[in-house]
Amino acid sequence: MSRKAKRSGEFELIAKYFAPLAKSEPGALGLKDDAACLKPRPGHDLVLTADAIVAGVHFLPGDPPDMVAKKALRVNLSDLAAKGAVPRGYLLTLTLPCDVDEAWVAAFAKGLKADQAIFGITLLGGDTTTTPGVMTANITAVGEVPHGKMLMRRGAQAGDDAWVTGTIGDAVLGLKVLKGDGLDLSKTHRQSLIARYRVPEPRSAIGPRLVGLAHACIDISDGLIADLGHICEVSKVGIEIAVRDVPLSPAVAAAVERGFDIGELLSGGDDYELAFAAPASARRPLLALAAETGVALTRIGRVVKGRSVSALAARGKPIRTARAGYTHF
Amino acid sequence: MSRKAKRSGEFELIAKYFAPLAKSEPGALGLKDDAACLKPRPGHDLVLTADAIVAGVHFLPGDPPDMVAKKALRVNLSDLAAKGAVPRGYLLTLTLPCDVDEAWVAAFAKGLKADQAIFGITLLGGDTTTTPGVMTANITAVGEVPHGKMLMRRGAQAGDDAWVTGTIGDAVLGLKVLKGDGLDLSKTHRQSLIARYRVPEPRSAIGPRLVGLAHACIDISDGLIADLGHICEVSKVGIEIAVRDVPLSPAVAAAVERGFDIGELLSGGDDYELAFAAPASARRPLLALAAETGVALTRIGRVVKGRSVSALAARGKPIRTARAGYTHF
Repeated sequence: MSRKAKRSGEFELIAKYFAPLAKSEPGALGLKDDAACLKPRPGHDLVLTADAIVAGVHFLPGDPPDMVAKKALRVNLSDLAAKGAVPRGYLLTLTLPCDVDEAWVAAFAKGLKADQAIFGITLLGGDTTTTPGVMTANITAVGEVPHGKMLMRRGAQAGDDAWVTGTIGDAVLGLKVLKGDGLDLSKTHRQSLIARYRVPEPRSAIGPRLVGLAHACIDISDGLIADLGHICEVSKVGIEIAVRDVPLSPAVAAAVERGFDIGELLSGGDDYELAFAAPASARRPLLALAAETGVALTRIGRVVKGRSVSALAARGKPIRTARAGYTHF
Repeated sequence: MSRKAKRSGEFELIAKYFAPLAKSEPGALGLKDDAACLKPRPGHDLVLTADAIVAGVHFLPGDPPDMVAKKALRVNLSDLAAKGAVPRGYLLTLTLPCDVDEAWVAAFAKGLKADQAIFGITLLGGDTTTTPGVMTANITAVGEVPHGKMLMRRGAQAGDDAWVTGTIGDAVLGLKVLKGDGLDLSKTHRQSLIARYRVPEPRSAIGPRLVGLAHACIDISDGLIADLGHICEVSKVGIEIAVRDVPLSPAVAAAVERGFDIGELLSGGDDYELAFAAPASARRPLLALAAETGVALTRIGRVVKGRSVSALAARGKPIRTARAGYTHF
């Protein structure tokens, strides 16, 4: 019952491809030990989150390995952003089928390296192992937040505004395009949607700046309606959104123009934007933050009494979404 | 591309089986958020380690689910013990094939619950997801160690004693028995070996007590010789062990008596005992620790100049092990 993969051995893979990714953090011990040692900066808490991505479930087996690496990392960085945490590092457990060759691992590591530079993080530890199953990348991401200030799903209050970052619906359409549905879109639009599905853009520059402004926050991985629903559930509030105010990219807007069901966009996952509740007093600093960072921050509705999400269509037309349990009107 | 497993949905599985395991840690937020918030106790560092166990690689698909859960947890707790860390909690990412039913998940969670009580830990977060592959349990364990005092593979010095906890070789023989080789042993012996393979005994009570006594430490997951070799490599020392001093359980001793190759025992993995180097001045407190905890601590050799592990047989007979690169004499 050896742990060795049928490539270079586990130790060699780690030494060759992963240890160089751990160089800048002394607590990672060059991956030459069984664990990493970490202390938050004074006055800070550590924030920990774990998410796996699985071939055939969260990415397509033929996806480029550097993009798979980035997706694995970024879905976790998105969780940290939603908690207001500055990312610090991550542990990686990679299970590799025997038919994955060393070139795949090299390209995967290259993707991690590129993202480490972008997000200012480092590999802290982990494991590689062979599997008779499919490629799975499990990441535990570690971030820091000022003590007691972590943003949560709870805390939204009736009267708050509901906001989102960026644009909604790109990822769900990107997956459709990858699966062969052209959606009657131009090549440029199709490519931008695919890129958005494959490599999400975690809002790491925005999340930590929401500490002190937002009352509650979540990242959109299950779909806008479902994730706002998580805030409703934990904060014990309702949220009303105006569908016409939901920000769409040019590609998504073109698809909607061609008749794509907007309810499906609001129910689709994988956007990895942030959705948050903030008091009216935060409007001015939030718009300044948008201007400073170049990331769109859009007010799409408001927090109300209740327990569910309501999507109000333009001209009063009702919106039906795929999720049960929500009020549409 | 839904994350939902074909049982209860992901959210329901988490709420029903895993959220109750997170109750005692406020920072886990009842698993109702995307992340956990943690701060080490004053004067302490956090120690993080990640390891996956994969069906068909690290456990057998028919193994009882509560034992699989315990093994997943304990291999990580063993890493923490080797670092001198007191375990605090863990994040779990579970990938489940569609044919794993809810009863399996319930039994798995029951195993976690039992071990949480034994080791004083709590679930901090994680994820469940479906997979077209095999069951994989990925755990990131979190522990605490006094600031700057984490035990490492580096630090062993020529002149130190080499020690191990417990007994060596049980797990590799347990796997042989599970695979159908009776080894000419009694049923009691066979059962004790299987139990040892399935559910290791992390030395969580010993590890933190080695802080200040041991110069270097590792847990035995790749085999005694290989893991001592890791200490040699990082500490830049050699280690000589006397094979006759390696502690064997009655079942393993019986197998050796019946002709089982002792070299294979020393090269076999999965014992999850601790191997460590400590100065002669630590002998008395170490023996007192053994008496206090009831865990055998056995001096099996010494740290010398060099870079490799030498296994010295009784009566000068050379020991051949399966691992290349070591000096045998």
